[in-house]
Amino acid sequence: MLTKAALVNAALDQSIPLARPLKIHEAMRYSLLAGGKRVRPVLCLAACEMVGGDQSLALPMACATEMVHTMSLIHDDLPCMDDDDLRRGLPTSHKKYGEDTAILAGDALLSLSFEHVATRTPSSVSPDRVVRAIAELGSAVGSAGLVAGQIVDIASEGDVDVTLEDLEYIHIHKTARLLEAAVVCGAILGGADDESVEKVRRYALRVGLLFQVVDDILDVTRSSEELGKTAGKDLASDKATYPKLLGLDGARRFAAELVGQACEELAGFDPVKAAPLYHFANYIATRQN
Amino acid sequence: MLTKAALVNAALDQSIPLARPLKIHEAMRYSLLAGGKRVRPVLCLAACEMVGGDQSLALPMACATEMVHTMSLIHDDLPCMDDDDLRRGLPTSHKKYGEDTAILAGDALLSLSFEHVATRTPSSVSPDRVVRAIAELGSAVGSAGLVAGQIVDIASEGDVDVTLEDLEYIHIHKTARLLEAAVVCGAILGGADDESVEKVRRYALRVGLLFQVVDDILDVTRSSEELGKTAGKDLASDKATYPKLLGLDGARRFAAELVGQACEELAGFDPVKAAPLYHFANYIATRQN
Repeated sequence: MLTKAALVNAALDQSIPLARPLKIHEAMRYSLLAGGKRVRPVLCLAACEMVGGDQSLALPMACATEMVHTMSLIHDDLPCMDDDDLRRGLPTSHKKYGEDTAILAGDALLSLSFEHVATRTPSSVSPDRVVRAIAELGSAVGSAGLVAGQIVDIASEGDVDVTLEDLEYIHIHKTARLLEAAVVCGAILGGADDESVEKVRRYALRVGLLFQVVDDILDVTRSSEELGKTAGKDLASDKATYPKLLGLDGARRFAAELVGQACEELAGFDPVKAAPLYHFANYIATRQN
Repeated sequence: MLTKAALVNAALDQSIPLARPLKIHEAMRYSLLAGGKRVRPVLCLAACEMVGGDQSLALPMACATEMVHTMSLIHDDLPCMDDDDLRRGLPTSHKKYGEDTAILAGDALLSLSFEHVATRTPSSVSPDRVVRAIAELGSAVGSAGLVAGQIVDIASEGDVDVTLEDLEYIHIHKTARLLEAAVVCGAILGGADDESVEKVRRYALRVGLLFQVVDDILDVTRSSEELGKTAGKDLASDKATYPKLLGLDGARRFAAELVGQACEELAGFDPVKAAPLYHFANYIATRQN
């Protein structure tokens, strides 16, 4: 996984040269290269390999998912949205470059994500797979994806009657959907048949849901110090959560079920090549923060 | 041309259903369906027909160019950019829906533009043409296109030393580049060979430049009342313009040259099918406001 992340970092670095106008390219690079685990790109490459493709086939798409993720962070941090001054210990884009440049850097990253896939995917990938992957990426971003999640998130802020359904909607659209697209696009570009693409999609959907369930469990079981954020705040704010709905043991059983179901979808693939996706599901299930 | 604009309006109306979350889809529709001449989509369809394609092949791309144009208007109108309250006599997106929703509506329109081309282009267009068109659209939007123009425009505001080179840079990137992409994508999707695509591109480049030259000429020759905006303001502000650089007659000769060169590029095509693009070049050259 480390090697894959390093490969992604090198490709991201090359994806945006410091061309004129300097300021916009600096702002794009500042946020895109600020670190992070590169979870989406790494899973995209892993899915490509699992279905029998060389990871180079999905590398431009892997970068694209990180460009989209970065765009959403830049725009979500803006004063009119979540109004955050810091991200990963550094000033947010609008704090460093101004709001106008931050908005434009996000726009440029979003546009580049699609352009990058269209121009950089190796010619050995059939163009109809490139078109399918672009459609998948688009649906994860727009008004049925990230944007939908953010608009409902903003609307539900300060609302005491937020239901579990609302929270799931926000989580699915702000987090799970782009992860799903990364994995599915990796499989498409790696040459997967339709049945394998759907297996990979079901894997991603379970892992996406698992992430939220584990988050809810950690919120009630870990102290603030261990978690690095205010623990128990979901309970305190009377927010709907899985432990509240199913009980703590029930939520744990549900999480175990989801890991099992996710890994089941990988059963038909070469176990060595499927290992990164197995490990990721188990990592999500057992994470402590 | 009227029929084409009506076709585009109907397709735009269908491109965004009023799905949940309602607010974001309302905001997207509000700006996208607020009228306008649909210049880019109509030229996209016309180029497609000129190279021998049925206009239905380019209709999703035609809509995409208008989505991109609308996104750029919404974001440029924001308080941290040009801070405009009105557009076409109606409140701007952020005035009606709030800044957060306006930013997200722009993001969603940008993402949808690529997705729309990828999912809606008829299957009779070979996928490699769809990929080429998506790359062309992307390059017109990002940090080498619209975004580049806007960032230089913002930087040059209030700067008395703005050169003709700066103004051309802004115009090419904010206006001409997307018009070029619309026409070139129409030709690509209509089945044009490489030589025809390049002819169409040179046509668009000349028309794009022509637009700016005529704008500069009108600024010095028409009164404010006729023009509907403050005339002579380029001269008053000591801005570099073509008339100042070439003299008024020189600028007029240059404009005439550009129309001639643009129309020359159309000489090899069926004159009936090339008529809309001929007319557009002449319309730009002879417009009075």
